[in-house]
Amino acid sequence: MNVLVIHGPNLNLLGSREPEIYGRATLPDIDLRIAREAAALEVTVRTVQTNAEGEIVDALQAARVGVDGIVINAGAYTHYSYAIRDAIAAIGIPVVEVHLSNVAAREPFRAISAIAPVCLGSIAGFGVESYVLALRALVTIGRKPA
Amino acid sequence: MNVLVIHGPNLNLLGSREPEIYGRATLPDIDLRIAREAAALEVTVRTVQTNAEGEIVDALQAARVGVDGIVINAGAYTHYSYAIRDAIAAIGIPVVEVHLSNVAAREPFRAISAIAPVCLGSIAGFGVESYVLALRALVTIGRKPA
Amino acid sequence: MNVLVIHGPNLNLLGSREPEIYGRATLPDIDLRIAREAAALEVTVRTVQTNAEGEIVDALQAARVGVDGIVINAGAYTHYSYAIRDAIAAIGIPVVEVHLSNVAAREPFRAISAIAPVCLGSIAGFGVESYVLALRALVTIGRKPA
Amino acid sequence: MNVLVIHGPNLNLLGSREPEIYGRATLPDIDLRIAREAAALEVTVRTVQTNAEGEIVDALQAARVGVDGIVINAGAYTHYSYAIRDAIAAIGIPVVEVHLSNVAAREPFRAISAIAPVCLGSIAGFGVESYVLALRALVTIGRKPA
Amino acid sequence: MNVLVIHGPNLNLLGSREPEIYGRATLPDIDLRIAREAAALEVTVRTVQTNAEGEIVDALQAARVGVDGIVINAGAYTHYSYAIRDAIAAIGIPVVEVHLSNVAAREPFRAISAIAPVCLGSIAGFGVESYVLALRALVTIGRKPA
Amino acid sequence: MNVLVIHGPNLNLLGSREPEIYGRATLPDIDLRIAREAAALEVTVRTVQTNAEGEIVDALQAARVGVDGIVINAGAYTHYSYAIRDAIAAIGIPVVEVHLSNVAAREPFRAISAIAPVCLGSIAGFGVESYVLALRALVTIGRKPA
Amino acid sequence: MNVLVIHGPNLNLLGSREPEIYGRATLPDIDLRIAREAAALEVTVRTVQTNAEGEIVDALQAARVGVDGIVINAGAYTHYSYAIRDAIAAIGIPVVEVHLSNVAAREPFRAISAIAPVCLGSIAGFGVESYVLALRALVTIGRKPA
Amino acid sequence: MNVLVIHGPNLNLLGSREPEIYGRATLPDIDLRIAREAAALEVTVRTVQTNAEGEIVDALQAARVGVDGIVINAGAYTHYSYAIRDAIAAIGIPVVEVHLSNVAAREPFRAISAIAPVCLGSIAGFGVESYVLALRALVTIGRKPA
Amino acid sequence: MNVLVIHGPNLNLLGSREPEIYGRATLPDIDLRIAREAAALEVTVRTVQTNAEGEIVDALQAARVGVDGIVINAGAYTHYSYAIRDAIAAIGIPVVEVHLSNVAAREPFRAISAIAPVCLGSIAGFGVESYVLALRALVTIGRKPA
Amino acid sequence: MNVLVIHGPNLNLLGSREPEIYGRATLPDIDLRIAREAAALEVTVRTVQTNAEGEIVDALQAARVGVDGIVINAGAYTHYSYAIRDAIAAIGIPVVEVHLSNVAAREPFRAISAIAPVCLGSIAGFGVESYVLALRALVTIGRKPA
Amino acid sequence: MNVLVIHGPNLNLLGSREPEIYGRATLPDIDLRIAREAAALEVTVRTVQTNAEGEIVDALQAARVGVDGIVINAGAYTHYSYAIRDAIAAIGIPVVEVHLSNVAAREPFRAISAIAPVCLGSIAGFGVESYVLALRALVTIGRKPA
Amino acid sequence: MNVLVIHGPNLNLLGSREPEIYGRATLPDIDLRIAREAAALEVTVRTVQTNAEGEIVDALQAARVGVDGIVINAGAYTHYSYAIRDAIAAIGIPVVEVHLSNVAAREPFRAISAIAPVCLGSIAGFGVESYVLALRALVTIGRKPA
Repeated sequence: MNVLVIHGPNLNLLGSREPEIYGRATLPDIDLRIAREAAALEVTVRTVQTNAEGEIVDALQAARVGVDGIVINAGAYTHYSYAIRDAIAAIGIPVVEVHLSNVAAREPFRAISAIAPVCLGSIAGFGVESYVLALRALVTIGRKPA
Repeated sequence: MNVLVIHGPNLNLLGSREPEIYGRATLPDIDLRIAREAAALEVTVRTVQTNAEGEIVDALQAARVGVDGIVINAGAYTHYSYAIRDAIAAIGIPVVEVHLSNVAAREPFRAISAIAPVCLGSIAGFGVESYVLALRALVTIGRKPA
Repeated sequence: MNVLVIHGPNLNLLGSREPEIYGRATLPDIDLRIAREAAALEVTVRTVQTNAEGEIVDALQAARVGVDGIVINAGAYTHYSYAIRDAIAAIGIPVVEVHLSNVAAREPFRAISAIAPVCLGSIAGFGVESYVLALRALVTIGRKPA
Repeated sequence: MNVLVIHGPNLNLLGSREPEIYGRATLPDIDLRIAREAAALEVTVRTVQTNAEGEIVDALQAARVGVDGIVINAGAYTHYSYAIRDAIAAIGIPVVEVHLSNVAAREPFRAISAIAPVCLGSIAGFGVESYVLALRALVTIGRKPA
Repeated sequence: MNVLVIHGPNLNLLGSREPEIYGRATLPDIDLRIAREAAALEVTVRTVQTNAEGEIVDALQAARVGVDGIVINAGAYTHYSYAIRDAIAAIGIPVVEVHLSNVAAREPFRAISAIAPVCLGSIAGFGVESYVLALRALVTIGRKPA
Repeated sequence: MNVLVIHGPNLNLLGSREPEIYGRATLPDIDLRIAREAAALEVTVRTVQTNAEGEIVDALQAARVGVDGIVINAGAYTHYSYAIRDAIAAIGIPVVEVHLSNVAAREPFRAISAIAPVCLGSIAGFGVESYVLALRALVTIGRKPA
Repeated sequence: MNVLVIHGPNLNLLGSREPEIYGRATLPDIDLRIAREAAALEVTVRTVQTNAEGEIVDALQAARVGVDGIVINAGAYTHYSYAIRDAIAAIGIPVVEVHLSNVAAREPFRAISAIAPVCLGSIAGFGVESYVLALRALVTIGRKPA
Repeated sequence: MNVLVIHGPNLNLLGSREPEIYGRATLPDIDLRIAREAAALEVTVRTVQTNAEGEIVDALQAARVGVDGIVINAGAYTHYSYAIRDAIAAIGIPVVEVHLSNVAAREPFRAISAIAPVCLGSIAGFGVESYVLALRALVTIGRKPA
Repeated sequence: MNVLVIHGPNLNLLGSREPEIYGRATLPDIDLRIAREAAALEVTVRTVQTNAEGEIVDALQAARVGVDGIVINAGAYTHYSYAIRDAIAAIGIPVVEVHLSNVAAREPFRAISAIAPVCLGSIAGFGVESYVLALRALVTIGRKPA
Repeated sequence: MNVLVIHGPNLNLLGSREPEIYGRATLPDIDLRIAREAAALEVTVRTVQTNAEGEIVDALQAARVGVDGIVINAGAYTHYSYAIRDAIAAIGIPVVEVHLSNVAAREPFRAISAIAPVCLGSIAGFGVESYVLALRALVTIGRKPA
Repeated sequence: MNVLVIHGPNLNLLGSREPEIYGRATLPDIDLRIAREAAALEVTVRTVQTNAEGEIVDALQAARVGVDGIVINAGAYTHYSYAIRDAIAAIGIPVVEVHLSNVAAREPFRAISAIAPVCLGSIAGFGVESYVLALRALVTIGRKPA
Repeated sequence: MNVLVIHGPNLNLLGSREPEIYGRATLPDIDLRIAREAAALEVTVRTVQTNAEGEIVDALQAARVGVDGIVINAGAYTHYSYAIRDAIAAIGIPVVEVHLSNVAAREPFRAISAIAPVCLGSIAGFGVESYVLALRALVTIGRKPA
């Protein structure tokens, strides 16, 4: 099973960015943790980070070939990018939305996700473990229930 | 580690209730799946189901003695029970919100959770696996990051 | 045909409660009127009254065995209980929503029903006769049209 | 007792119009069913259909002479015609609002009735039987309770 | 004069629950303070605590016999329980709404009270003294001004 | 202890102004009642009335010298004067908001207080006694809890 | 100078319709009062009444020939008829909006006029005199100031 | 008959202030026009202008002695001064709201009047003539109809 | 192929009505342009204009016999006529919504179309050409894709 | 005449993406159809597709040299990209907004276009033909009417 | 060049008022800083402080004689004083809105300025320097660009 | 001191783009003006322009090395880019928001800034001088006050 992990805007700053919200793990730390879990679960994981909405759309589209599941932390785009939403709806691959922090406990604009309605499910609030749990969810379920 | 799993209103109907949304697993099936995962994780799990808001508040309060983490599927109360929210905020135990279905993809009133802001995190959309992932989250994290 | 009539919160006070809105008939008066109509229609009716949201959910669930139709006056819960809504949607039995008063003519919060979208239909404003008409509706229609 | 039944816009298309919502009964079928019930109840019924808001206002006004009760299905005007609302409030005759479908379960704009606050009561969701029940309600109650 | 004091959901946790908001007094401390004031005012006070909305409705209804005034801290139900509101409106006994904290200074959902419009008056923000002041208000006024 | 009582706009008309809402006591009657209570509580009270928003701000600011607590009935300014709110927040003296009538039961614009979030607490609905209770609250509590 | 007075829906019922709101003058009474004032002002007035929105549009359009000013009481259409608004904007004749009652003091939906922004001005609340004042306004001003 | 005319904020700038909206007449021009009309109607008129909300409240209150009717152009206060509204409601004298411009045709915040619901009626859009018409309205009607 | 073109309220004034918005072409000019295009496309076109909402509903209904496609410019009714919407939904003929002006660039109330959701598609902003393009659309597509 | 056609995000997936909404034509199919029509109309067309908002802004800006008209399907950006809106407003070239599907009939967020107010006009709901009609509109009109 | 600086409500408390928001500089400190900058820029500055909305309107009006530019910190009036807004619009002198704190980062009601739309521009968040920058802006620009 | 100036979308069109709003200065003109001021202030300034949201995020992030302050005109992204907001919050460098025009005086969507709450302050409405003032603000203040 091939899984793509997409890190959205500002996630490359992890560790130094507002650590009281996002913790002190860096993005390489997170990718290492994901890789270890992937090894344990015997799945192949590739990760990508970009600050550009259009590149997230590109990455989602490219995943149509050879990717079986996607974990996406769309960062702030979560709350307004209908372009990313449309891409997720278009590609027919199970996508799990993750967030490091408990977004519901922060600013009001973070209470609504523009992409959640077209994802398989959502996991938020567990720091790095949000990604690990998403990976497990994809492996266990592997597809949207009919 | 002792974990309490709270099933809210109408979850006792699982299996027969709108299976196109909630799947065909019954509540005993879910509890069995949770018990198996608990055994694997070497934690003790107790589950309770009730249709009454006040009893969910009672159960949350009672958990202050001897419970280390809580998994709650508050069902429809998720969207309006500030009483449950206050109970979660009051007891000082990490609580993970779970939902079987991807609530963001359903009626508009299900897009907002009244309890999420005081939970550790949320997991939605993976059917029975939402509970299993929540159990893992509690075991791995065990407490809200400082 | 077996019909369950559920009287929600504060309906046990009928007769003394704001008679300019609800009239002077007591709940036993109403149940008697329902019983007479039931006899005329040759259906069996059982009535229950509770002030507790959870018990209304319980009663709806229990009706899955042996009940063919339900008349519910959910009182104030009508306007916010998504738990009752979910129960109605889950049990697969035709449910008719009734109100003694013309709720649309009262406070703004009474203009919207949280449960109406999952009921078979609604009847409001005819005092005791709202129940009688609902009984007739259930007998005549007996099921949601395909 | 003389009753006027007003069928509003597009109800003349019944039978062919979106039968999955409105059923297969035609307007003459409905009028026949109403006539049969009227005969049983020993009341005189006259029915009128128009697509024009102003003609509904005219019909309501004309009813001040010789009509004891009105059943109105104002169709889409239900949701925005304050002119019809004002006419109902002006004429001092009991008016029952009916709908074939359960309007609360359809588009959001159908969840609110502009005319309900000035009607005696409302009945929705029972197809042709909505009219029959309204007729019964008028006969039984005959006037707004003081 | 007989006064009933109703403590709503989560008030049994006082002392340990978020003391920075609610102070360190426990519910028995509060009840003792109320009792001392009642003795000074020569009124009889009975107190009850429950987490269940339906039981608050029950308690309000039961107060129709032998209770002359009610002090209610409906906790989180304050903000959405129209069932409690209807009970207060129905029983014809003066009810004073109290809150320990200054609810207007907290989350937006606490800025509106669903029950205040049918209470005699409201007192919020004085900790235990909110109850004491409410008791005094009931004794002094004793009934809604005509 | 020195207490300042601020009567806002139109309170000088009490007794003649809409007595069905505000009662028949005049402002001198109220000040007398306050003075009597102050004597009993052994505090010094000074009262001021003005219809001008800016003069209320001035009075609040002047209170920084020699005033230990403030009772304010800001009248209609309650609902929109952020200038008064800022003054209360700026002066660092405990302020209690009072209203003669139960403002929550009147026009919708009176349901929200612009000043409550920066007051110590609020008391509404008890006529003249609202002031008396506020005086007691200030004496008993004397300062915002830390 | 030629003036057209348009009476909208339900104004033909004046005198019998909710006299506590609209007074006891009938439409002929009003037209007589207008005629007397017209004679005094030496203008020619023609009046028309219709319950139909489209006929009001027709009347406004027809006025392009031979009419110098229009007084319109659009009744309930005032609050939602953008068709009437467009007609007023299209014809290039000064139009004065009138209402018998003080619409701002009634239901919330009457607080907004869809047609006022394209009228010359508005007069409301003076019963029959609203029309008389409008007539005077047209005579004195006769056209929108540049 | 004694009439008070209150000119609110910025009306003293008339003639120089945005003449494309307010015309070129100065406030003395307006007062002269009012005085001429008053003489014709054989009423006594006194006019006052102030930019201060509190002084408008004072003027309204003072009018309780010796004033039979009031014409008020509350300027921008029209749209938010509930203090002025309360004063109008308190004094029991008929008050007519006037505006020089057609406020409904300007910024959205000018579409709603906070004072209109407690006035006798409103006249807007006729420049200086708005005052003249209001004077006539007061003379003709002289009091709110019962 | 038979096409019906419906011109709604105030479109008969084209040419003289606000030409800076609608241009200087008259309705006969438009109908001529449509006729020329129809001839080129070898379709039969009939056009109708009415200011009455009910007559538009009538025309839509009558089109069920012998009409293969409809072009409708519902004018101001576009924004609130759910009666026209229901008629379009009921008749099962492809309908194209057209507007002369770019309605999205005008008043806010014109930004939403009540009828668009049940039309085949919409064309706005091209003056007379909006009709011509709609005609072409009907000819090319001829029916809603399955 | 030189025309630029801009295809926005996810339009490169056409044919495989949700064909029940967008049909089975691929983007090359659409470009071929546009090319054929361009040839017939004797205009030069260049097409570009990108998923990146910034690149759409770039393309619009670049069009200032040598492009006479633009057809844009901004995909999901339609509903929130004020950057694209500003670019369209800035370049002074007629732009026609197109959509394959009838966006008004889909999710609520698609009912509003952020770019429509600065376009020449809009065409939606005709699949590939939306582009063809837009091309014709540009050729026929060629510029915004004065 | 003559500049008027208007300090609105509560700014006289600077230094002692919530120093964590407004800093420790007093109003005389600020005026001194402004005076020093004025000397450097060779402009004459006069400053005024008042808590009264009406006096701010008066000051703005008086500035029509002899003042070339105005710097205004309207304090809390910023967010609701349409009277001040009207005064700014009326006087035809360039006005710069300033705030000490970054109002956008505080309570929601401070996110909107009622006066900004009629000012030349706004400067917020730089403490005392906001005034200094405003002074420079006035000197450099001196008038609204045509 | 090193300052980065970020020009967002469409600012490269300055001079030709809607000059009645933005003036006739081109972006090089602006950069020259900034450079001159920078020289006077003895700071180093680098400027960048991009139409892409992601590139603005990239530029903000890159500024963490070697940049002491940032001036950003985020153009239309100001009003919806939470990604830019998150980048500003993440990098811990003082950022000043600038706008050429007085955005509060334009379309409603421009009245709210998504980035202002995380900036040091905002300056709008002074054309090129907005940048110059922002530069001064950064030099004078240099950091967010504790």
